[in-house]
Amino acid sequence: MLKLGIPAGSLQEATGELFRRAGYDIRFSSRSYYPNIDDPEIECLLIRAQEMARYVEKGVIDAGLTGYDWILENRADVHEVTELVFSKVSRRPVRWVLAVPNDSPIKTIKDLEGKRIATEVVNLTTDYLAKHGVTADVEFSWGATEVKPPKLADAIVEVTETGSSLRANNLRIIDEILQSTTRFIVNKKAWGDSWKRTKVENLVLMLQGVLDAEGRAGLMMNVHRKDLDEVLEILPAMGRPTISQLADDEWVALMTVLEESQVRDLIPKLRLSGARDIVEFPLSKIIT
Amino acid sequence: MLKLGIPAGSLQEATGELFRRAGYDIRFSSRSYYPNIDDPEIECLLIRAQEMARYVEKGVIDAGLTGYDWILENRADVHEVTELVFSKVSRRPVRWVLAVPNDSPIKTIKDLEGKRIATEVVNLTTDYLAKHGVTADVEFSWGATEVKPPKLADAIVEVTETGSSLRANNLRIIDEILQSTTRFIVNKKAWGDSWKRTKVENLVLMLQGVLDAEGRAGLMMNVHRKDLDEVLEILPAMGRPTISQLADDEWVALMTVLEESQVRDLIPKLRLSGARDIVEFPLSKIIT
Amino acid sequence: MLKLGIPAGSLQEATGELFRRAGYDIRFSSRSYYPNIDDPEIECLLIRAQEMARYVEKGVIDAGLTGYDWILENRADVHEVTELVFSKVSRRPVRWVLAVPNDSPIKTIKDLEGKRIATEVVNLTTDYLAKHGVTADVEFSWGATEVKPPKLADAIVEVTETGSSLRANNLRIIDEILQSTTRFIVNKKAWGDSWKRTKVENLVLMLQGVLDAEGRAGLMMNVHRKDLDEVLEILPAMGRPTISQLADDEWVALMTVLEESQVRDLIPKLRLSGARDIVEFPLSKIIT
Amino acid sequence: MLKLGIPAGSLQEATGELFRRAGYDIRFSSRSYYPNIDDPEIECLLIRAQEMARYVEKGVIDAGLTGYDWILENRADVHEVTELVFSKVSRRPVRWVLAVPNDSPIKTIKDLEGKRIATEVVNLTTDYLAKHGVTADVEFSWGATEVKPPKLADAIVEVTETGSSLRANNLRIIDEILQSTTRFIVNKKAWGDSWKRTKVENLVLMLQGVLDAEGRAGLMMNVHRKDLDEVLEILPAMGRPTISQLADDEWVALMTVLEESQVRDLIPKLRLSGARDIVEFPLSKIIT
Amino acid sequence: MLKLGIPAGSLQEATGELFRRAGYDIRFSSRSYYPNIDDPEIECLLIRAQEMARYVEKGVIDAGLTGYDWILENRADVHEVTELVFSKVSRRPVRWVLAVPNDSPIKTIKDLEGKRIATEVVNLTTDYLAKHGVTADVEFSWGATEVKPPKLADAIVEVTETGSSLRANNLRIIDEILQSTTRFIVNKKAWGDSWKRTKVENLVLMLQGVLDAEGRAGLMMNVHRKDLDEVLEILPAMGRPTISQLADDEWVALMTVLEESQVRDLIPKLRLSGARDIVEFPLSKIIT
Amino acid sequence: MLKLGIPAGSLQEATGELFRRAGYDIRFSSRSYYPNIDDPEIECLLIRAQEMARYVEKGVIDAGLTGYDWILENRADVHEVTELVFSKVSRRPVRWVLAVPNDSPIKTIKDLEGKRIATEVVNLTTDYLAKHGVTADVEFSWGATEVKPPKLADAIVEVTETGSSLRANNLRIIDEILQSTTRFIVNKKAWGDSWKRTKVENLVLMLQGVLDAEGRAGLMMNVHRKDLDEVLEILPAMGRPTISQLADDEWVALMTVLEESQVRDLIPKLRLSGARDIVEFPLSKIIT
Repeated sequence: MLKLGIPAGSLQEATGELFRRAGYDIRFSSRSYYPNIDDPEIECLLIRAQEMARYVEKGVIDAGLTGYDWILENRADVHEVTELVFSKVSRRPVRWVLAVPNDSPIKTIKDLEGKRIATEVVNLTTDYLAKHGVTADVEFSWGATEVKPPKLADAIVEVTETGSSLRANNLRIIDEILQSTTRFIVNKKAWGDSWKRTKVENLVLMLQGVLDAEGRAGLMMNVHRKDLDEVLEILPAMGRPTISQLADDEWVALMTVLEESQVRDLIPKLRLSGARDIVEFPLSKIIT
Repeated sequence: MLKLGIPAGSLQEATGELFRRAGYDIRFSSRSYYPNIDDPEIECLLIRAQEMARYVEKGVIDAGLTGYDWILENRADVHEVTELVFSKVSRRPVRWVLAVPNDSPIKTIKDLEGKRIATEVVNLTTDYLAKHGVTADVEFSWGATEVKPPKLADAIVEVTETGSSLRANNLRIIDEILQSTTRFIVNKKAWGDSWKRTKVENLVLMLQGVLDAEGRAGLMMNVHRKDLDEVLEILPAMGRPTISQLADDEWVALMTVLEESQVRDLIPKLRLSGARDIVEFPLSKIIT
Repeated sequence: MLKLGIPAGSLQEATGELFRRAGYDIRFSSRSYYPNIDDPEIECLLIRAQEMARYVEKGVIDAGLTGYDWILENRADVHEVTELVFSKVSRRPVRWVLAVPNDSPIKTIKDLEGKRIATEVVNLTTDYLAKHGVTADVEFSWGATEVKPPKLADAIVEVTETGSSLRANNLRIIDEILQSTTRFIVNKKAWGDSWKRTKVENLVLMLQGVLDAEGRAGLMMNVHRKDLDEVLEILPAMGRPTISQLADDEWVALMTVLEESQVRDLIPKLRLSGARDIVEFPLSKIIT
Repeated sequence: MLKLGIPAGSLQEATGELFRRAGYDIRFSSRSYYPNIDDPEIECLLIRAQEMARYVEKGVIDAGLTGYDWILENRADVHEVTELVFSKVSRRPVRWVLAVPNDSPIKTIKDLEGKRIATEVVNLTTDYLAKHGVTADVEFSWGATEVKPPKLADAIVEVTETGSSLRANNLRIIDEILQSTTRFIVNKKAWGDSWKRTKVENLVLMLQGVLDAEGRAGLMMNVHRKDLDEVLEILPAMGRPTISQLADDEWVALMTVLEESQVRDLIPKLRLSGARDIVEFPLSKIIT
Repeated sequence: MLKLGIPAGSLQEATGELFRRAGYDIRFSSRSYYPNIDDPEIECLLIRAQEMARYVEKGVIDAGLTGYDWILENRADVHEVTELVFSKVSRRPVRWVLAVPNDSPIKTIKDLEGKRIATEVVNLTTDYLAKHGVTADVEFSWGATEVKPPKLADAIVEVTETGSSLRANNLRIIDEILQSTTRFIVNKKAWGDSWKRTKVENLVLMLQGVLDAEGRAGLMMNVHRKDLDEVLEILPAMGRPTISQLADDEWVALMTVLEESQVRDLIPKLRLSGARDIVEFPLSKIIT
Repeated sequence: MLKLGIPAGSLQEATGELFRRAGYDIRFSSRSYYPNIDDPEIECLLIRAQEMARYVEKGVIDAGLTGYDWILENRADVHEVTELVFSKVSRRPVRWVLAVPNDSPIKTIKDLEGKRIATEVVNLTTDYLAKHGVTADVEFSWGATEVKPPKLADAIVEVTETGSSLRANNLRIIDEILQSTTRFIVNKKAWGDSWKRTKVENLVLMLQGVLDAEGRAGLMMNVHRKDLDEVLEILPAMGRPTISQLADDEWVALMTVLEESQVRDLIPKLRLSGARDIVEFPLSKIIT
């Protein structure tokens, strides 16, 4: 039995959707913290992303999904199986930055000596300061951290995507402490167990198969043999095309996989080179 | 003209969606109980699932979709064409159970002699009691049945999926009376009419084609001829694969249909056996 | 750089969705009237459909999407590249009609001489009256035009789809002034610039590729060679099928594209003629 | 202890509000059917209006609020303490009417002989028919009764306020069977118990005090003694004014209670007659 | 019969609420443009604020509520009965301003010569320019006017309350063209009719009575005769207090009307001067 | 200038409403943590209730509203001016309890020795354990604490009102650690400043004036002199009634303030004793 932590909260729905597309029917109930999954060898448990690494390290659960930031904050000794860049929305990593008021005299990390810093990630911030040989008073913040300076704190360490919330609060970024993405982590002892390791590797293979299919599409077309070389030259090396013989010996059918963002540039060229009856269709998984 | 009953209420949207995916553009209007359908040979009518069988039996409509429970409750003499397990949500059947308060002295059906039972399915309950030789006072309940014991009733017969509402009201299940799924039913005289029967059979063919595609996916892959036998052995008998010759004579392209729940187990094996460029794509209908 | 006008308001979301499916990642922000697009050669600008043609004509933007009605209302001299019938909802064109109260003595256009007409399209209405040699007082209406007769106006010129709003206000249609669909328009000077023209043509090719795939589906099946002619006869001429040779020489695989509304009629016939393992799958784009 | 039934559903919130304004802090919880009330001598129970009279008659509860229609439908032998016309929305009584399709040959009650009538109030309808010496097949309807004719029923007995739903379904009213308002009912045995009777009478006194204050307002003004008679003549007899002496012997202060709908007519007259510093203030209860 | 125009749209609900508090039960229906009012001598009609003055001037309606801005934009010749500053939200008047991009070379009205100005108020803008001897191209804007400069217009005339939307779009105010509040207007001929004039005056008396009570409260207190002068000195002249004799000759009861914003400052002073049992209560109308 | 902390989150709206009723127009903006208040001598700051006491103690703000629980959790040395039992919803104090799974062997506090306890109030829990001489591992919990036992914790300390969430998670209460209500706290140094102290006292006077009016109502009635003694005996001592002389010397008018919950008991008695024309009216503030 593999005990698997699913991140509760903002990542929950996206994770559920990813698993479902990977072939695992996972269901949440508003009344239970034990999501149902249709694999009798897996037991799911909803856990806050902030606490996930802690429970994986302790072996309360074997594996889980969480952010790289919270692995570090928990100073957790766990095995990272893979990075999951899942869902277009969060394709860019979140950034933890050190920020001060626009009109603060603080210019560099060194200026933080003896100052008060408010943050949700106390350990991460403390480790960062130690690395730079700075001693400061790091205070845990319950939220709304960005409104605390200058009255309630001299500086903050806060997560940001576009920086707009920082700007809205008249804050200036001094340094980027960390970029963080989602990780699939495993307890080290569990990783040493060969059954659990294979179980995890197969699960990750399917999750990555789904993510690799995101933003890609299948393309089918008919090509006259005389145009085949020109058409093949246009297609990117990556998408090894499958060429099938048609009943009419003069023509072949060609099937390939492309980035959706390439399609709009390639189709006009393919047509010019003689491709006909071009059809694009959606894909669910790609395993190369 | 085929007069077809669509179940109003909780099944309405799922039924509409099923028909649309089967190729019938059915539209509901909040103001009318006669949904529009783009087949001039079919006339649709919204009817409560509870009353459907009654009106099919009487010939007011030729055919309709309803639950097995309400067919029995109506004691209706109709022809069942097929069971439709449509939409993942309702894949498990609903259960009608007999329940009493946790601290009730009632332990078995026999203990119900002379007691008061509240339920929405009076006939079904009466028939069940008669079968067990028990006489009790069966009262029709307008709803919120599960809160009635012990003050307003000694026992209830109520529908349940997970049993959580029963537990929340401190009720204990004594017996399961019925499991019920959705059925496509036809009036017996209409079933004898060859035009109506063919019309129904073609409609059901498409509905089942959609339902058979639910939870299934297409899989394409390239296989070297030397690995073909091993790969074919892995694939389940059901999904007769289509094997096309590629331009490179050493390789073939293989296309098959699989249960989505199998995909997660088969892909690791297929890769081990030499399958390459595995691509999964969604399906809309399957007719074998 | 191509400056492209996106219609703000009711068409905005549908236009964004169309572009995304065509391979252009367009994003709206509630704070900006300059949507982001992931093509550095295109600059987008949100403009009301009512004003689009005015700004295309003046060259403030190179191209844009708007309704035929508003091109006429602005009396704009622009080049129409194509008609875009995009999204099932608006597949039928909107109609601008002349309407009067059911009990009005006005029967024909001629009876409007000297009357008061309320409308959002003052120029369009004035041109229409001039064409029929009628002089009337055309007043600009800020909205809710259909409730104005008979107190606030003798007649109205108003847009309608099903006519239900007119009927609900006891209005009778006297004449249809215009049918209007969405158009892709270009500034005449920009159309003369060969880089801008190719840019527009490739963009329109992809947009039409998406629209052509709407309401169509792919169909794959296996057919024995002896049944091939009969099966091919059933398929409509339009969907030139692709026939691939299978490993078993006696059988071929057949792939074709069909209207979804034909599928429900063709599948029963295909099965009777010997087609097996019929699979329907969704399409994203079709370029023939 | 007085066991009191509160009508669940559409009247629940209005009833709760009425009690709160009468000085009883009643609280509903989405999880419990036993509302809390801050009077230890009263125990509340949420019960459907349809079933209320049944449980009052049986003595399961001592008293309750329900509609006159459902008292009759249950043929319940209970004591009606008062009629509560509570909340402006429902100030006009609901009407139960007998309706048939516009084009039905049925013109009078007599024409119903042998016909099928669908209704939620089977007993009420049966009694009504018996009174007119008509025999018909009265069927219980689960709802959406007004869409049943002509296919599923020849006539219906249905509740209506404005008749608009009937008109929308092309139905014509043949007769009004009943007008119904909310009643406060008591079990007959409980009414004979002097403690319970006093408890109920005091509760009803407060509920009526609130309802009597609805739509009324207090009016204070200063009047010179010489104008007093003229001012008093203007005020309606009902609102016995309180006249206090002011420090300045020439003037008096006058306080009275008026219908809000009278205020707009009386204030201009009062001013003409010499009233000054007129102030209107809201009232919570009136007990005369 | 008085025909009264109620402004449709953003002012509709606030107007309805004002009338209801003034004693007129006005009801809107989503299906009708003729609101019901419980005064048989008044007929209401929903009309856009933009068009109200036009129809009052033509005599299609006798009276109506609209903004001063739209009276001017329609260049309507009507009688203004009163200014209604109704509802706290809109207590400050809306402002129409002339604005240009922050970095525009345009500094004064004179710099607009020959420029393009976008606005919803074409006439108001044209009149304003004429008054300053400037000629410019004034274009009607269908909305989102503030995002048009600098691409689609050189300057705009737009409504603003706090200026935040202008700042967000990098616009700078050059001049304020108009301040506008809500007005009660009457057709000049109707104003000459004595019945209609009295009807309007009484209606306006009640509307103003409600508005005068907004933000005011009643205050009652007991004062010993020896403290009376000191207490009276604290109270503002405006709120002529009513002084009643109490049973105990040494004490009087004092009732007065105050601004709510004064209460918090006066109560501590009143207590210091000997006022006791101070009670504040809400008011519905004040007519002095 | 008084710096005042307003509790962000669940108490925010209730606090804003309380201030508005006290005569202070306080406005929140979703974009700012500095609410506007119409008193130039007060500066407001939104702060989480959890952190309020910490910042008052440090003098970052002069005063604030927060819960007694969070004062203790912060071990803050501040001056408590008053307890504010504001808003009916939270009239009963929140309770922090120690709970374990129903089937846990833990029966008393002593059994917690060496166990793991999850809670949001680590200090409060640690102090409580120390008082009982117990050593345990107290872990900070990010939320959803009640679902942690038994897998993630042996016991929890959690806030509860009705205990229903605990029951739903099969938890049993072992001990109540604390009851907590809202407090108005002031920094000790600020309390020594006479301007700030008077400012706080006047503000609290108004807040308490509002809270004292909650649940109370004004009662006016006319009483014949012969019945006056009996009526006065019924009225509770607290509500010193005001007795005014009426024009008719035989009668007096009586005005008093009562608990709403008393009104329902007193009115029947008052009527029996001869009170007439009893009118109840709402109050906004009471300062005795």
